[in-house]
Amino acid sequence: MTLTMRAVEVQDDEALAIVEMPRPEPTGSEVLVKIKAFGVNRGDLLQRIGKYPSPKGASPLMGLEACGVVEAVGPDADRWAVGDKVCALLPGGGYAEYAVADAGSCLPLPEGLSFEQGASLTETMMTVWTNVFDVCALKPGETFLVHGGTSGIGVSAIQMAKQWGCKVLTTVGSPEKQSAATTIGADRAINYKTEDFVEVVKAEGGADVILDMVGGEYVAKNMDCLNKLGRLVNIAYMQGPNVELNLMPFMLKRITMTGSTLRARIPEEKRQVRDGVERDFWHMVSADKINPVVYKEFDMDDIEAAHDLMKSSQHIGKIVVKTGVE
Amino acid sequence: MTLTMRAVEVQDDEALAIVEMPRPEPTGSEVLVKIKAFGVNRGDLLQRIGKYPSPKGASPLMGLEACGVVEAVGPDADRWAVGDKVCALLPGGGYAEYAVADAGSCLPLPEGLSFEQGASLTETMMTVWTNVFDVCALKPGETFLVHGGTSGIGVSAIQMAKQWGCKVLTTVGSPEKQSAATTIGADRAINYKTEDFVEVVKAEGGADVILDMVGGEYVAKNMDCLNKLGRLVNIAYMQGPNVELNLMPFMLKRITMTGSTLRARIPEEKRQVRDGVERDFWHMVSADKINPVVYKEFDMDDIEAAHDLMKSSQHIGKIVVKTGVE
Repeated sequence: MTLTMRAVEVQDDEALAIVEMPRPEPTGSEVLVKIKAFGVNRGDLLQRIGKYPSPKGASPLMGLEACGVVEAVGPDADRWAVGDKVCALLPGGGYAEYAVADAGSCLPLPEGLSFEQGASLTETMMTVWTNVFDVCALKPGETFLVHGGTSGIGVSAIQMAKQWGCKVLTTVGSPEKQSAATTIGADRAINYKTEDFVEVVKAEGGADVILDMVGGEYVAKNMDCLNKLGRLVNIAYMQGPNVELNLMPFMLKRITMTGSTLRARIPEEKRQVRDGVERDFWHMVSADKINPVVYKEFDMDDIEAAHDLMKSSQHIGKIVVKTGVE
Repeated sequence: MTLTMRAVEVQDDEALAIVEMPRPEPTGSEVLVKIKAFGVNRGDLLQRIGKYPSPKGASPLMGLEACGVVEAVGPDADRWAVGDKVCALLPGGGYAEYAVADAGSCLPLPEGLSFEQGASLTETMMTVWTNVFDVCALKPGETFLVHGGTSGIGVSAIQMAKQWGCKVLTTVGSPEKQSAATTIGADRAINYKTEDFVEVVKAEGGADVILDMVGGEYVAKNMDCLNKLGRLVNIAYMQGPNVELNLMPFMLKRITMTGSTLRARIPEEKRQVRDGVERDFWHMVSADKINPVVYKEFDMDDIEAAHDLMKSSQHIGKIVVKTGVE
């Protein structure tokens, strides 16, 4: 008898439907996670319209992070046992009651957190760690700028950089979001609708590291407000990747530009990211130094409403969905 | 009585003239070098037409590297004594019989080398080291592409990367230069006038690090043939710094783009570069593993001819000028 599960599937007309399908089975170094809650990420919206497919070999379902209980363990999986509560980074498949995750992509659910809170942390903390702290090597005392300060990425990046001993600047789109960003730790939240972020950042002494997901015209603006030896990293190009640039600041300021995706990395690379997050920041979560920021929780049957909220960009922090699985 | 020296000065009409002027005096951590020979660099041509002025505090004369004998030592200068033969990186002032250099910007003239040979190495080896080996962290076994393989930078970069245990690809503009580049160590010299370098580099397995001075349309082409986690560094934009780019490869391949100048760095930064070159490569020069490639020597009175040769780009290796000072 094949065990089944409920999952969110994208239909041919891009509508979402709850369907019954076979549960995945863990092979190799994978664990099977019974998912209590999963996080919604902007990439899910792209995947839904066919622009961000799952990597080869991964579940074709949406869902980059989930929190739940280990239900079964593959033959080569280390560390985890049935019953462990984990936060898992997934290459896909999180929009379901069960998913397989590589053992090296899982973190223990921090003490005192609900499953919903645990579902809100993994993707953003791993993304911020690999880009800001590993690749861009943000150092204590440096100034860090993150765009979209009230996005899921933003709320993690602000808290992590603040705990790292950095001056933290961010851009947001409303006075309410300015207030939220400073409450969680930003030294200065810039309302990009009423202020020129380049001028404000320069007045604050310039940025040493910038985490950007906007792209487009922001690329040249970022270059403009980077300090000597500054680093710019893009994790998305929401305004598009096509830019006209004068590259001379690269030479004159010796700045560095890079970018990355997390999803397509091989499990061994993700394990290194997991280890970095765990070593540098994960203990700060149970210590109340880094807090989950869950804006709203939805039931899986209301997944369409969760996507609508993400599209609206009205949220502050993470959007989380509960599967209801027992 | 003020001691004087002969030096090359740029006149108001951009002509060059040999003039008599006071010798500089070493202060702080500087040494005074009696210059036997100096290297000609492409930046000198830019400085001559007003586009690459000396940094604040440096001699306004052209000349980024020189080889000679220590004539006097500043009160805070370490390591060097009067009579030492040195290769000096200069922020300016090399087109003269005497120049001051920071003690941390000098290397010992390698055993067995003439002053003319010693004048051909410093600027390029320091530039290649800081960009390729320090910033881009080229590793043994990786594939390295340097454009302009028979330029001064090119002949140093090819030899250094080959000694480092890398596969070395380069672009040049003639069959004669192809032959010269492979003779000094390139595994494959691409004639960009008859071959598409992107296709050749891809067929060779792609590049992990690219050292470029062309810029312009080469930037997108470089991005195209970089491997996953590849690094691109520009030390000039001879085709201009204004580019139209699709940045998506930065995310998908996690590539890094940077650039630098050496001239404007503070003495402490140059000392670190000097130390790196000395530790990793300088001993290979006297061991005949890295060889000076001096294309032609000129007398200082013929400086105009030396510049004409640089402009023509017909040279293979370095152009060196002898001051004739006793």
